Amino acid sequence: MRHPLSSEPVTDRSSTRLSVLRLGHRRERDKRITSHLGLTARAFGADEVILSGEEDPSALETWNSVTERFGGNFECRYEAKPMGWLRRFSKSGTIIHLTMYGEPWREAVQNISRDAPIVVVVGGTKVPGELFKIADHNVSIGNQPHSEVAALAVFLESWVGTLDELTRFVGGEIEVIPSERAKRVRNSTD
Amino acid sequence: MRHPLSSEPVTDRSSTRLSVLRLGHRRERDKRITSHLGLTARAFGADEVILSGEEDPSALETWNSVTERFGGNFECRYEAKPMGWLRRFSKSGTIIHLTMYGEPWREAVQNISRDAPIVVVVGGTKVPGELFKIADHNVSIGNQPHSEVAALAVFLESWVGTLDELTRFVGGEIEVIPSERAKRVRNSTD
Repeated sequence: MRHPLSSEPVTDRSSTRLSVLRLGHRRERDKRITSHLGLTARAFGADEVILSGEEDPSALETWNSVTERFGGNFECRYEAKPMGWLRRFSKSGTIIHLTMYGEPWREAVQNISRDAPIVVVVGGTKVPGELFKIADHNVSIGNQPHSEVAALAVFLESWVGTLDELTRFVGGEIEVIPSERAKRVRNSTD
Repeated sequence: MRHPLSSEPVTDRSSTRLSVLRLGHRRERDKRITSHLGLTARAFGADEVILSGEEDPSALETWNSVTERFGGNFECRYEAKPMGWLRRFSKSGTIIHLTMYGEPWREAVQNISRDAPIVVVVGGTKVPGELFKIADHNVSIGNQPHSEVAALAVFLESWVGTLDELTRFVGGEIEVIPSERAKRVRNSTD
């Protein structure tokens, strides 16, 4: 079952800021996975990605560069103490932890409040046990091992629903024109 | 709009073998992205992943090892000449090319035949122009840059629908038991 709201366009999200927190980033080993994770957060409707683990300015640069070229208001930053940040966040927001051990997402997504800010937490290899406890929802995108990028994409697609890209990703230099047979791009700097 | 078939359990797929072809793999740079791509193919219902670009036994080892531990009949192999393979495949099967330049997936997915074998082609940085021509469908999962792993996951989730993991992933050593609060695993080798 798909969430009934999920195919409605997103119009006003001011009351439910949507963040993605990437735990346990390792600069060398996770470089491209973390980069894809932040771009996936942006493309599927998150308002910001928060990086934790090892500091990595190149990840933030990649995300900012894509936002500059393709538009929108996506934010990103580094958080040195993610568990402390989550404990504070949990007082007023909803924590969703994506994990292959959690409850099936198709059911879980229907029980998640749409009235409070949300953070979707995506772990690396090792996740603190405390996270399973402070999360409001431990959610699995299937119980098979696959990818945090895949999990985030499917979760956000289901939670956010159809994005109106033309109104969401404004102010960029590049706009891709959907096409059956070719690469079509509008470049505002031409 | 979600495809009407997508929430029905998959029962008989014998007539529509589902393959994923990874183009242009680079052993060092793409190691983890390609690894995640194959695991995503498996977890979301593909029957095989075909690797092309640079040969990389370690990718095949990762995929086989996960299948051995978590069950199912997922296959993988290397293909040295992917465009020739695609030209032959196109005579009897359907080629779906995932690209940020393509048609929106929600509409495209409804026009894809379910009667023939399917290959979902996922490019790397550079994709041969011929692919846009021989593909039956050039499909975009949004027109923003994000991740081939995200694109594959959302496409397969939409195309395959809900997998019955208990019947699909049989014969493995490890079974994850969905849980609200903990890591629960059944291990058949204990």
